[in-house]
Formats: sequence, structure tokens, C-alpha cells
Amino acid sequence: MKFDGFDSSRPLDLVLLGRAAIDLNPLDYYKTLAESTTYRKYLGGSPANIAVGLSRLQKKVGFIGKISDDRFGDFVEDTFRQEGVEISHLTRCKNGEKLGLTFTEILSEHESSILMYRHAIADLQLEAEDIDEAYIKSAKALLISGTSLAASPSREAALKAVMLAKKTQTPIIFDIDYRAYNWKNPDEIAVYYSLVAQESTVIIGSREEYDLTQRLLAPGLDDRETARFWCAKKAAIVVIKHGKQGSTAYTCQGDSFSIKPFPVKALKSFGGGDGYASAFLYGLFENWPLRDCLELGSASASMLVKSHGCSADMPSLETIRTFIAESKAEYGEDVCF
Amino acid sequence: MKFDGFDSSRPLDLVLLGRAAIDLNPLDYYKTLAESTTYRKYLGGSPANIAVGLSRLQKKVGFIGKISDDRFGDFVEDTFRQEGVEISHLTRCKNGEKLGLTFTEILSEHESSILMYRHAIADLQLEAEDIDEAYIKSAKALLISGTSLAASPSREAALKAVMLAKKTQTPIIFDIDYRAYNWKNPDEIAVYYSLVAQESTVIIGSREEYDLTQRLLAPGLDDRETARFWCAKKAAIVVIKHGKQGSTAYTCQGDSFSIKPFPVKALKSFGGGDGYASAFLYGLFENWPLRDCLELGSASASMLVKSHGCSADMPSLETIRTFIAESKAEYGEDVCF
Amino acid sequence: MKFDGFDSSRPLDLVLLGRAAIDLNPLDYYKTLAESTTYRKYLGGSPANIAVGLSRLQKKVGFIGKISDDRFGDFVEDTFRQEGVEISHLTRCKNGEKLGLTFTEILSEHESSILMYRHAIADLQLEAEDIDEAYIKSAKALLISGTSLAASPSREAALKAVMLAKKTQTPIIFDIDYRAYNWKNPDEIAVYYSLVAQESTVIIGSREEYDLTQRLLAPGLDDRETARFWCAKKAAIVVIKHGKQGSTAYTCQGDSFSIKPFPVKALKSFGGGDGYASAFLYGLFENWPLRDCLELGSASASMLVKSHGCSADMPSLETIRTFIAESKAEYGEDVCF
Amino acid sequence: MKFDGFDSSRPLDLVLLGRAAIDLNPLDYYKTLAESTTYRKYLGGSPANIAVGLSRLQKKVGFIGKISDDRFGDFVEDTFRQEGVEISHLTRCKNGEKLGLTFTEILSEHESSILMYRHAIADLQLEAEDIDEAYIKSAKALLISGTSLAASPSREAALKAVMLAKKTQTPIIFDIDYRAYNWKNPDEIAVYYSLVAQESTVIIGSREEYDLTQRLLAPGLDDRETARFWCAKKAAIVVIKHGKQGSTAYTCQGDSFSIKPFPVKALKSFGGGDGYASAFLYGLFENWPLRDCLELGSASASMLVKSHGCSADMPSLETIRTFIAESKAEYGEDVCF
Repeated sequence: MKFDGFDSSRPLDLVLLGRAAIDLNPLDYYKTLAESTTYRKYLGGSPANIAVGLSRLQKKVGFIGKISDDRFGDFVEDTFRQEGVEISHLTRCKNGEKLGLTFTEILSEHESSILMYRHAIADLQLEAEDIDEAYIKSAKALLISGTSLAASPSREAALKAVMLAKKTQTPIIFDIDYRAYNWKNPDEIAVYYSLVAQESTVIIGSREEYDLTQRLLAPGLDDRETARFWCAKKAAIVVIKHGKQGSTAYTCQGDSFSIKPFPVKALKSFGGGDGYASAFLYGLFENWPLRDCLELGSASASMLVKSHGCSADMPSLETIRTFIAESKAEYGEDVCF
Repeated sequence: MKFDGFDSSRPLDLVLLGRAAIDLNPLDYYKTLAESTTYRKYLGGSPANIAVGLSRLQKKVGFIGKISDDRFGDFVEDTFRQEGVEISHLTRCKNGEKLGLTFTEILSEHESSILMYRHAIADLQLEAEDIDEAYIKSAKALLISGTSLAASPSREAALKAVMLAKKTQTPIIFDIDYRAYNWKNPDEIAVYYSLVAQESTVIIGSREEYDLTQRLLAPGLDDRETARFWCAKKAAIVVIKHGKQGSTAYTCQGDSFSIKPFPVKALKSFGGGDGYASAFLYGLFENWPLRDCLELGSASASMLVKSHGCSADMPSLETIRTFIAESKAEYGEDVCF
Repeated sequence: MKFDGFDSSRPLDLVLLGRAAIDLNPLDYYKTLAESTTYRKYLGGSPANIAVGLSRLQKKVGFIGKISDDRFGDFVEDTFRQEGVEISHLTRCKNGEKLGLTFTEILSEHESSILMYRHAIADLQLEAEDIDEAYIKSAKALLISGTSLAASPSREAALKAVMLAKKTQTPIIFDIDYRAYNWKNPDEIAVYYSLVAQESTVIIGSREEYDLTQRLLAPGLDDRETARFWCAKKAAIVVIKHGKQGSTAYTCQGDSFSIKPFPVKALKSFGGGDGYASAFLYGLFENWPLRDCLELGSASASMLVKSHGCSADMPSLETIRTFIAESKAEYGEDVCF
Repeated sequence: MKFDGFDSSRPLDLVLLGRAAIDLNPLDYYKTLAESTTYRKYLGGSPANIAVGLSRLQKKVGFIGKISDDRFGDFVEDTFRQEGVEISHLTRCKNGEKLGLTFTEILSEHESSILMYRHAIADLQLEAEDIDEAYIKSAKALLISGTSLAASPSREAALKAVMLAKKTQTPIIFDIDYRAYNWKNPDEIAVYYSLVAQESTVIIGSREEYDLTQRLLAPGLDDRETARFWCAKKAAIVVIKHGKQGSTAYTCQGDSFSIKPFPVKALKSFGGGDGYASAFLYGLFENWPLRDCLELGSASASMLVKSHGCSADMPSLETIRTFIAESKAEYGEDVCF
């Protein structure tokens, strides 16, 4: 479906709905989590990272989420405030639920795994009554992180947000963001992912995430067919990621643009996706040509796999531009195409 | 949305998805449940009653549901089999869940209440993997009973059935059938009811049930506006019930037809709705004029409030016709208009 | 351990702790529950039956239990009140839990089975804070029904009652009353049953129930060894039941008395145990010789298997005596020895 | 009750039952947990700390516990193995439960608080079937950590261990170790704590912990009455701790010995208790005079509040003796009496 652009009269650029959590990345990495002794604490969770990323790129973002009523909840709130993220709809759990923790095992530049604490978890306690029509209407777009659909009551909160976004003509950006934790079976994933995807203007996901989403409705589609399928619903842009092979953005006009990662010496194999999403969305909000959005996204992604943290290392526009210029100087103008 | 009629090539007329349960109605009624000493057992549950009703009207119906793995489950299965309901997709619980029980308190013709056993209940254990695309595609229509949306995993099973009905061009009949039991909050009701309603060709509910459904999307609509709202989605027929005041069916062409109950001496104040639904749907499947569908529905409803049971007392076409003829002879041709 | 008799200064004879529930026995019996159509409602649950039995024998009994906050809870309360059972410590559930239901399948005089509704069940919601030291101290003895130990919070309530009975020198009567429902594993049964048994003055159970109780502490004991084992703790009387073969009471002095059932034409194969317990305990409270206690118990048991109900058919002292006299006249003086 | 000493023929000195968990102590302490950025990982959990403490003092100890089936579980297992703790009865969770985490906030030498992750927690998944009579019988004593009683199934595992310790004449050491987490109400605490305390030969707890334990049976006792109360059951030694004021050990012969902390510059206000317990128990196993046991315990406690970790900083016998000698040299022979 053709997209007519964002409503520039709305004060916020983007409201993100989903999890804010804590990453604990080992300082003594390149060994197992059993062997690592010291951990650095970062704000984490994909939509929280994207929120910080966009805010550092000078976009006005708000966050709808649920955090723990303890010192770690304070940490999330403090960090968002310092980063300039609007937190009027960031609320506290009432029954002792805790913030999600992700301990990262960095075995090498290419191998990593995570150990997650996600029982009785704060972010999935977001409730339908926390969703405020006026807040959604105040934003040019609403980003739904797919993990918010994994369990009740957060699931109903996300679905309500989707309903109210439709009602208020707020374009939906769906970051599929699949995490096996908390889901019960593949049908459940397909049901809720497709309910949101069919209402979304922009969809971002990996090949595997689209396969999960389409399992019941349209199994077996390739990338181009996938894009066509969702564009026949309400999508204007469908981004399909293939890890180190790069990614492609398809438009409802039938165009597509592909991008490869910038060559870097990675410290870790994760974190790139959130840098990519925030910089790519920055370009969209700026009405950049899609190719430029992708380039900025890819550059941010590459910068993040070089760094230890994720939210804490989100780059400014200037540093991304410097990085792009330096990469092109070293590897040639078409380094990522 | 205009409805082009049912696909006559499909072998089943209707597949119903929802609960089969047990009604225990006191034989020594017109006293409280504490005082009643003897109870008669009936197959119950709104969609089970409608299935039996339609089957007695010679329609071919199938049932998607979950029953207990005990003697009461046997009873449901035996009853369906005796009534000619297709039960290849009626499955048994694996973890000791029990069939719902409804003890009915009949205080007078006009006053009744119910005492329900619905903890760890069989019908809500229906799972997404129990839903079979080919079975849905074998039916001219799929009826979703709203109670199936009240909790997981039945909720996901119902949503999957809706998705597969869309995929296979199977019209959806949504019987809102609200029961307070098992729902957690009003937003949840509005979210799931509207997700199904917006995909349905025929919607049947009371004024209160539409209000619950529209609470977030379009609060405050009257009957005519309600009909228009859903016809702007996919509905062809919107039936709104007002208890003893009768009911009105609205079409997407803008027509409406109203009906009143037939005058009868009631034994109890419940059970009419399922008689209504089964006879009304019979008319639809027969391509009758809407007015005739409503008359048959209203007659069946009136016959059921006179009787002690519900499924067990579903009338045949001939007995409904006799009842209508006798009523008209006694009260005049326009007795229910 | 030698027992010095009950403290006659205490106003209540017995306080019973455990479940009150509802029995629904088919009126059209000798067929399966799937086939039976009509059910009669009775107050049920082993300790409730014993309470009614003892009350009809003119003993003063009180009941500590939790019932549903609905019409069926009213029924239990009304029935206890009519039967003269003291109900100041019978309280209502606050979260919608329901009274247990037992549908009885009576296939023949000898074969029966039950279909139980025991999810989110009222009786197991009894809480430690419901246990009142003064109430326990007001009774000559405290009867603990083993089923109350099956799950929290009732488990802690029963253990607290045991502690307070010890503290107030109130003899404990332990009716092991094993029901598979609600227990999670055999070790759990052995742990909690033996914790209560080792504090009890009178223990009543079947051979199988003692085996469950002794599984960890002393597996493989025969009846006489079983009695000796518990008498070495605090038991004065150990009753071991063998169904239709009769039962034996062992004393801490090393005596034992055996009894057989009275010959009767049974209607059903259950209900006898609660008649037995109430009449046997009546004899104990009256300081009868153990042999006479057993005879009265056995007679009451035989009378109950002849009748349709259980609590509702508990006999008076006079009718038991008449039954014994008639049986002896017909079958000889030693009919049950 | 008089204690005749440990059975020297048994190969293990002590088997401990309870939690092994992870402590994450900030390296940048003396600020809030929200502000701290870097954490050091230690093996934690009171009985795990005591196990390591005793092992470093050359006692042979085994551990009965449940750990997560992930890298953190590996860490616990590796650490125990390195420390020489026998781990044949340390088993893994099967349903994804996680190791408990304790983030410590060290605000000053005197103020600290903790943020615990204890939902779906590994240690409380210990099951009755994990308890092995032969293993308990192989140890001179069994230590039960009170936290293991906080919830099922660990509660039943601990009660079974107590039953089997009685059966095998294995003296029980009860470390009350109260943690508010996971308990539901004060009666529950009193019921289970007193069930274990009444079977224990050695009881160790703070004044507050004894008050919780005695709440139902004997409220309002002072220290001396508390000791007398438990010695009238099976206790030979009752240790009552008063934090910085020191502690007193009471014997069933009526003696008592008091001790004060050694003067040290503390880094943190926690961790001392486990050092105290391990060194005190070392003395008991060595048949030392009680006064010497207390001195060693107090010295170890003081050494631990000076250090950053807990298990990792458990001292050897030689270092404790050096510490005592230095303290006495500096502060006088009676520094802790």
C-alpha cells in the first residue's frame, strides 16, 4: 500500500512499544559465561536500544513500557532521561516482577550466546490499560517490537496499541524481533505476528522471522514474494535481513535496494540490528531516498558490532558520517552496495 | 460488505468452534439452588446447542472443540453422535481438565441465575494445532463462539481458525456469546471481539455485547450505527438482540428487519438465544428472505423458554412450523412483527 | 502411648478439620455416568459425613473448613446448621473457588467409580490464619482428615492445627482418608501423613493408607508391626481397615479386636467408611469397650452401603441398635466377629 | 537433649541441603545499584558459602541442591569441584529454572541492600526424590538451610531429609537463614521452621529468626527461655546471634558462652554470618570447647566483612589463627569476649 509520508504536525517522531531490559556483558570476554568474572551493565532490549539510537540522532522518541520497581528500574528510567527519551508512559510493575537480564557470552568475534532471565518479567506486564490513544496519536509512527506479543498481558497491550494506531491513522512500524523465550508454540507466533504485520506500514525482520510470521497464511514464500504479500496488505516498505550477507528493502512500488555490511573488525556478533533499525528509521523520518537510509543503517550496524555495549554505543549522525566517509576512502565508494 | 451466498459445493453446512459443556437443571425448580435437590443433565454450551439445533433442522454440522477425557466427555460425544453432528474434530483433554458445568437456578419464569464450574476447563484447552485448514474449507461457513476467545490456548485456536477461514474464503459467523467467566478485563474483550468481528460476514449479539466489542474502536454507537460500522468492514448481516423486546437484523444494503418474541408461558428465562441462532441460521443456509429467517428463529426461541432443557428440546422444522401456525391462528398473522 | 481419656470439661466433643463437598449420586443408577440422566445432591466429603454422623449420635461437633461463596456454600452451611454441627469456623472462599463435586457412578452393588471436580477447590483454600487455638482447645479431640494435607494453603492450616492441638493437649484423631486427587508424588504423601500420624492418639486407615504413610520411615510392615510402630510414637489406638474383610483395632497395650461387616444387600460400594468412623468414635467418646465401638461402627457402615446417600442417611443410635439386634436375631450373636 | 558427639565412622563430615546461587557484587561500590556499572560474580547462597568455608578448613562436605542447566550452573559445579565439595547430589533443573541472583548494593560499610532474582528459581526445585537416605547416612551431620523450606517442592525435599536424618541417627544442624523472598505468610514460616527446629541438635539463628520460628508454639521468649525451649526438644546447642552485638551459644547443660565481633574496618555489612557458621561448625567437628568454636567463628565473620566476596574469601585455618593472634596482640587477649 502506498505510503504518503509521516504527519509532520505530530510532536513526537516515534513511540516505541516493548521491552527495556538490562544487558550484562562480560569485561573478560572470549571465554564462557561460567569463566567470565566481571560484567558491565547496559540498558538493553531491542526497542530500548532503538529508542536511544534515534534519540542520539536527534529524533523525538517516546517509550511505552513496563519496568521493575527497584534500582534496576531506576537505572532504565535514569538512562532514558539522560538520553532524552520521553518517558511519561514508562510505568512500574506492582507485583515484584523484575527487569529482564541478558548475560552475554562472547566466545569470539563470531560466536556468542545469551543467558536470559525472563521469568515473571517486567516488560511482559505491560497492560492494555497502559495504552493511551492520545499518546499514540501524538507520534508520527508507532513501533511495535514483536517480543511484546509473546505473552499476556503485554500481548493485549500491543494489540490495543495497534488498534488505536489504526484508529488514529498512525503508521505502524513492526520490528519482528523474534526471541524464542516466552512463546509457547509456532502457531501462536504466526497468529500474532501476522495480525500485526497485516496492519503495518513498515516491516523489518530476518528471513527466518518472516517465515515464522507467514507459516499459516503463506508458507514457502521467497523474499520478493514475501514483500509482495505484505504490500498487498498495508505495507509500504518491507525490509528483509540476511545477517552478514546484508539486507534488502522492498517497496510497494516494486522497487528494491540491497546493502552489505561495512567491513569492520568485530568485537562481538550482536547489537548490529538495533543500530541498523535506528539509523534506517532516521533516514525514513528525514524522507531520505531508501538507498541512503540503508547506507546509514548499515554503517551504524557495523559500528555497533565493533563496540562492547549496545545502547551506550549508539553513534551520532556525525560519527556515522565520518565512519562512512572513512570506509569509502579505504574500501571504495561502493563498499556496501 | 456484500455477501454472495454460501459455496454450495462444500459438504458441510457449518462448522462451529467453541464449548460443549453440561447443564444441570433442577427438577424441583422455582427455589434456590441451595434448596433444589435433584438435577437433570443436558448437553449444554451455546455452540453445542446451536449444533444440535441445526442438525435437527437437517443441516450438516461439524464441531471443533475440546472435551474431558472422562464419562462426561463420553456423554458429549455420544450425544453429538446420536444427534448426527460430525465429531472428527472433537478431541479429548490430556491433563485432566473437566467439562464445564452449569447449574441453573430457576427462581421463576423471569428470574434465573447460574452457578458455573469453569476452572481448568476443557473447552478452553482447544489448541491452535487442533485447527485444520481442510476441515474449515469443507464447510460453507465457520461459526466462532466468542467465549472461545476468553483465554489461551483456545483464544489462539479461534484466531487461527479465523485466519484459515479468510485464507479459504469461508464466511465467518460470529456469535459474540459473552460470558464474564474467564475474561480478565474489558480491554481484552474489546481487542479480541473486534479482531473477530471485523472479519465476520454475519455477527449476532445483544446490545451489551456490541458495546463490549466496540468499546475501544467506536464507543457510543446506536444499533443502526453499529450495523453500519461492521458493514464497513466485512459484515453482510448484523443481528442485534434486545431480549424480550425482540431483535433486529441489519444488512449491508441498509435494510433492517425487526422481530418480537412469540407469546408463550415460559418455564425459564434462558435457552432462547441458541434456539434463535440455530433456526435463524437454518433460514440463511436455505437462502430464505431475512424476514422468514427471523420468524423461524423467534419461534424456536419461544419454544425453548417453555421447555426444561436446551439442546435436548431443540425443535424440528415441522414442529416449529406447527408452532408458528398455531400462534398466528391464536394471536394474529403479525404476532411477532 | 497410653491414652488417659478425653477431657470431660471441654464443651465440644470433636472438632473436625477438612473438606465439606457435594455428592451428586445418580437416581437412575446401575449404568454409566454418561448414561445416567438425573442426580440427587447430598452434603459430602468424609469429615463432613463424620460430623453429621456424630451429631446425629448426639455428640457435639464443630467443623473447621472452607466453603464456596455461592449457593452450594449456602447448602453446606444450611445442612450443617440443620444437623446441629457448630459452624463458627466454617468460612467462605474469597476468590471464586468452588465446592468440590463428586459425581458417583454406581455400576452395580460392588462396582463404583467417581468423577471429581476438584480444581481451584474451596476446601483446600483453608488458611493457617483460619486456625484458632481457643477453638481447638474447646474440644475433647481434633480430627484431621488426611485430604486436607494434599495442597497448600490447607496443608499449612492442618499442620498448624496439629501444632496447636499438641500445645493445648488436645488428642488428635487422624483419619488418613487418602484421595489421589491433588497430591503430586508419593514422597509428599509419606512426608505429611507421617508428620501427622506421629502426633496422633487415634489413627484410622486402610492397609494401603498405612503403606503410603510409612513408605519412607518404615516400609513393609504388616498390620501388627504397623500398630506397634505408631504406638511407639503417640498412638493409643490404631485401626486398620481391610474393606469387606473387616477391620482390626490395635491398642498400645498390645490388644487387638477384629470385626467383620454385617451381612446386607448393598445398593452401592461406598459410604461405609464414614458411617464406621462416626459410630466408632461415638463409642470412644462414651468410653465403651473397644469391641463395642467396633460393633457400632461396623453396623453403621453396613447400613450406609444399603442407602443412596451418605451424610443424609447417617443413622441414629436407636436405629443402629435395632439393626444390630435384628442382624443378630437373623444371623446369630457373632455375626460380625 | 544431651549430644553424644558425631559418629566418626562416617566418611563425610557434613552434608548441606539448600541453595547455591550467584552473588553479583559491584566493583564500583559505595553508590546505588542504579549507578554501579560493573559487577563481580561469586558463588553465593548461605549453605554454599558455608560448604566452601568448611571445605577450606579441610572438612569433607557434600551438597544436596538443584542448579540451573546453563553456564551459571556450570559455574557453581566448577567452583564446588575446585573447592573440593562433594557434588554427587547436586543436580540440574529440567524446566529452564534459573540460578538465583543477588545483586548487592553496598552504600557504605554499614548500609547495604540486595536486589534478588528468585522467580522460577533453581534451588527451590529440589525434589523429594532427590533425597537419598544412603547419602545422608554417610555424613556425621546434616545441615538444613531454612530457605529450602520456603516453597514446594524444595520444602518436601527438606522435610524428607529431616525424616531420613532421624531414621539414620544423623544429627541435624538447622541454620534458620530466613529470607523474606518466597514465603507466603508468617504462620507458614512458624509451622515449617518449628517442624525442623524440634528435630535439630544444633540450631543457629538471629533473635528475629527464633521469634519467627516460635511465633505459634511459644511466643515472647527471651534468649535463655528460647534455648531452654529447644533443649527440651532435641537441641544440644542453641546459637542466638545479635548482629554487631555478638552472639551467644547455649547448651542443653545450661551453660552459655558469649562472643563479640573482632574489631575490623568493614568493606560491607554482610557475609559475616556464613564465615561464622563454617568456622564455628569446624570447631564442633573438632570437638573443641564451645568457647573456642565461637572465637574461630567470630574471627572468620570479621574477616569476611572486610572482603569483597563471600565464598571466594573464606579463610583457611592458618589465616584465621593469624588474624586472631594479630587482633589479640593489638586489642588484648579478651578482644572478643
